[in-house]
Amino acid sequence: MFRAVAKTLFVSSVYRGVLFGLRHYCKNIPLKLRVSEALSGAELGANVKVQGWVRSVRSQKKNVFLHVNDGSSLQSLQIVAGAELDNPLLTFGSAVEVTGVLKKSPHPKQPVELEAEQIHVVGKCNPVDFPFKIKERHSLEYIRQFPHLRCRTNVFSSLLRVRSQATTAIHSYFKDNGFVQIHTPVITSNDCEGAGELFRVEPSGPAFVDDTNFFSVPAFLTVSGQLHLEVMSGSFSRVYTFGPTFRAENSQTRRHLAEFFMVEAEISFTQSLEDLTKVMEDMFRSATEHVLAHCAEDVDLFHKRVTPGHRDTVDAMLKKKFPVVTYSEAIDILNRSSENFAFPTDWGCDLMTEHEKYVVKHCGNLPVFVTEYPYDLKPFYARDNQDHPKHTVAAVDLLVPGVGELCGGSLREERLDLLQDRLQDAGLADTYSWYLDLRRFGSVPHGGFGLGFERYLQCILGVDNIKDVIPFPRFSHSCLL
Amino acid sequence: MFRAVAKTLFVSSVYRGVLFGLRHYCKNIPLKLRVSEALSGAELGANVKVQGWVRSVRSQKKNVFLHVNDGSSLQSLQIVAGAELDNPLLTFGSAVEVTGVLKKSPHPKQPVELEAEQIHVVGKCNPVDFPFKIKERHSLEYIRQFPHLRCRTNVFSSLLRVRSQATTAIHSYFKDNGFVQIHTPVITSNDCEGAGELFRVEPSGPAFVDDTNFFSVPAFLTVSGQLHLEVMSGSFSRVYTFGPTFRAENSQTRRHLAEFFMVEAEISFTQSLEDLTKVMEDMFRSATEHVLAHCAEDVDLFHKRVTPGHRDTVDAMLKKKFPVVTYSEAIDILNRSSENFAFPTDWGCDLMTEHEKYVVKHCGNLPVFVTEYPYDLKPFYARDNQDHPKHTVAAVDLLVPGVGELCGGSLREERLDLLQDRLQDAGLADTYSWYLDLRRFGSVPHGGFGLGFERYLQCILGVDNIKDVIPFPRFSHSCLL
Repeated sequence: MFRAVAKTLFVSSVYRGVLFGLRHYCKNIPLKLRVSEALSGAELGANVKVQGWVRSVRSQKKNVFLHVNDGSSLQSLQIVAGAELDNPLLTFGSAVEVTGVLKKSPHPKQPVELEAEQIHVVGKCNPVDFPFKIKERHSLEYIRQFPHLRCRTNVFSSLLRVRSQATTAIHSYFKDNGFVQIHTPVITSNDCEGAGELFRVEPSGPAFVDDTNFFSVPAFLTVSGQLHLEVMSGSFSRVYTFGPTFRAENSQTRRHLAEFFMVEAEISFTQSLEDLTKVMEDMFRSATEHVLAHCAEDVDLFHKRVTPGHRDTVDAMLKKKFPVVTYSEAIDILNRSSENFAFPTDWGCDLMTEHEKYVVKHCGNLPVFVTEYPYDLKPFYARDNQDHPKHTVAAVDLLVPGVGELCGGSLREERLDLLQDRLQDAGLADTYSWYLDLRRFGSVPHGGFGLGFERYLQCILGVDNIKDVIPFPRFSHSCLL
Repeated sequence: MFRAVAKTLFVSSVYRGVLFGLRHYCKNIPLKLRVSEALSGAELGANVKVQGWVRSVRSQKKNVFLHVNDGSSLQSLQIVAGAELDNPLLTFGSAVEVTGVLKKSPHPKQPVELEAEQIHVVGKCNPVDFPFKIKERHSLEYIRQFPHLRCRTNVFSSLLRVRSQATTAIHSYFKDNGFVQIHTPVITSNDCEGAGELFRVEPSGPAFVDDTNFFSVPAFLTVSGQLHLEVMSGSFSRVYTFGPTFRAENSQTRRHLAEFFMVEAEISFTQSLEDLTKVMEDMFRSATEHVLAHCAEDVDLFHKRVTPGHRDTVDAMLKKKFPVVTYSEAIDILNRSSENFAFPTDWGCDLMTEHEKYVVKHCGNLPVFVTEYPYDLKPFYARDNQDHPKHTVAAVDLLVPGVGELCGGSLREERLDLLQDRLQDAGLADTYSWYLDLRRFGSVPHGGFGLGFERYLQCILGVDNIKDVIPFPRFSHSCLL
């Protein structure tokens, strides 16, 4: 018994010695932390190393103060160093590596600061040549001129963190609801919308001449993954895709791009448009709540600095159910108004931006579902309501404050005879014989929708120009980098 | 006291009455379940409704047995019905809606079966015209002819569930490790690899003539998001992208496509190639373990039916550390072998498929990192090792069994003067002045890699042809749908 105890004491004291040695050893190897980890306060008192870019420099007689940011959060880490560590190369935009001890900060603005023992300038940055200036708040228009550098500003790095988080949120929503993700193709030989605003794809090399198609058929950039998703909904019941989509529109508006991201879903065994609007509304709500919870600081920057007051609009969207009006009711609303619209508002006319805005305002500045559109306004795949005298299809658009059309969807015509007639009338029955096959073999009622991801970001952040919510905007006369 | 008890009794009996009424009411509205939910056994005894497609029909004197699948799992739900519910329209491929009661199955093969009270044929399927036949096991080559229907086979629906799950796993890995996801553009005005095998993009409409560029500059489909990620790594330290990439290669091999998916990551403040190989190996391991855990049934189908024995190869990859050899060592290995290679194996030569295969086998049929390639073999951005007499760069490829090159990566040249010289020599300094800016302003040591997602799926599932691991394959002379 005595020997056992002695042995235990011996072993444990050896163990403690090793532990002490390890700790001593580790104390000399600083713990590498990201700025967000350092700011969490979990490592107070530790000897750490932080790497990032200088966002502010303040040299005083005895001390130099830096703010270092590495993109892991909007907030930077304050570095406090003795004047002997000051260095003319410590400029706004330079890259540094700082080692030192994490201390509780005496200032209420930041919980933690790093007392520097060493500051190493990893990469210089000439403040005269660097287009962004210390302490200046550059406009979104100004920073847009520097697509390779604008991610180094607070506002655009916040935007990109929100975009990344919103992407995650949308994937999670679909995953949690039993959807299979499908990578629909970018290059396609069909034109889903029939809109004609397509980009053509051809090899650029000298090996191919004009009359030779690389793919043996004319190939285009996709305008929608819908038809490919319909293929898949015939096996998985619930599918979605999230990727780039293209329009060769020569428009220079604040809500159009030549390349933009779209979320599209397709659902089998639907019974009515409500099966779709429920998913659209749930997804909007779920993604937005996720973003507000996970990117509070970044979202705040937009709601305080970019569009003050926008948070109230977003909160209202989350609290209230989205109103539903039929297209015919929307036309009535427009015709009853005293507004002087530039475009006609007769039944059968397309809803223009001015009309969309009015309907949204009329419905309490909330997202509004507009349903049951005229047959002639929608593409061949929209499900015929077979009503009269006003002939409509089971289509739905979601209009949102400030942006207009955010989503478009419809039940799809699943009845072989009706679809065949419509395609034959349009001279497209041969081109779409594969699509008719989907109705020949185990056809089911189904429907789907698409959401413009950039417009969604504009909507929740209150960003006026779509070019400011995408990393590298492409539009007519502009394809930088 | 008595009154209180009496009141409680009264309230609780009212409450029980309401509950009973609700339950009675609910019993008549069948619970809508997906097949995977029904199979879980959680709703045994419940009155349910299941919707899906018939995968097998067996009519007996007293009963009819169906298997119904809705894509939520590989396994179908067995339906047992009295002969009075039999119907000539109940054919392989038809869509049905079945209501009835979930019972424990007497057969060990399935835990649960549905005793049908009603079977409604939602969509017919003529078994003569339908290209897939009941109980036949069609080859991957055969089903590839029907891109709009092949997702209705067991093997291809399993593939697509695995693909969706692997996508989730890769996103999770990066998210868990503090990476920001960036949507790099598909349309670009630069040619990252300098390989020249580019697709050109132009509007197809009549509004544009040959000499007018929609974007004012020649525009192409991206071959890599690397340069765009390098822009972003200068703000977020860790970034990744996961999207389509393009090559106008006129090759018809079992591992090339014109449109394929690539996972790319870029990491700032790297110290050596090991910082990259660690991420590459971790990601491979983490994604593969996730897929094996979440898609066991689907993966098994491939490991048992498509490439028997492949599971052992995958298990070995997960258990053992990936070996690392330098390019020079790989050349030595090849030169010491008794193999008769078709292509030269001198120092400075590119490693061809036959070489890759040999090196992988030599290293125990495991994934192998090959590092430190000749300077002249790699693009301008690879970091110069400034060694001699053999001049190399800090680049790394990951070669895997059966597939060959799975990943390629490098440290990037972060030193302004060296990069500038190399671009000037190539006459590219003006084109890439924005890229040089990244080194002018706060440059840091960094590196990154790309992984071919389809090749990854081939590697873990043992699928020989890359056309069988992507929903809609695009290659020379083929762009179906």
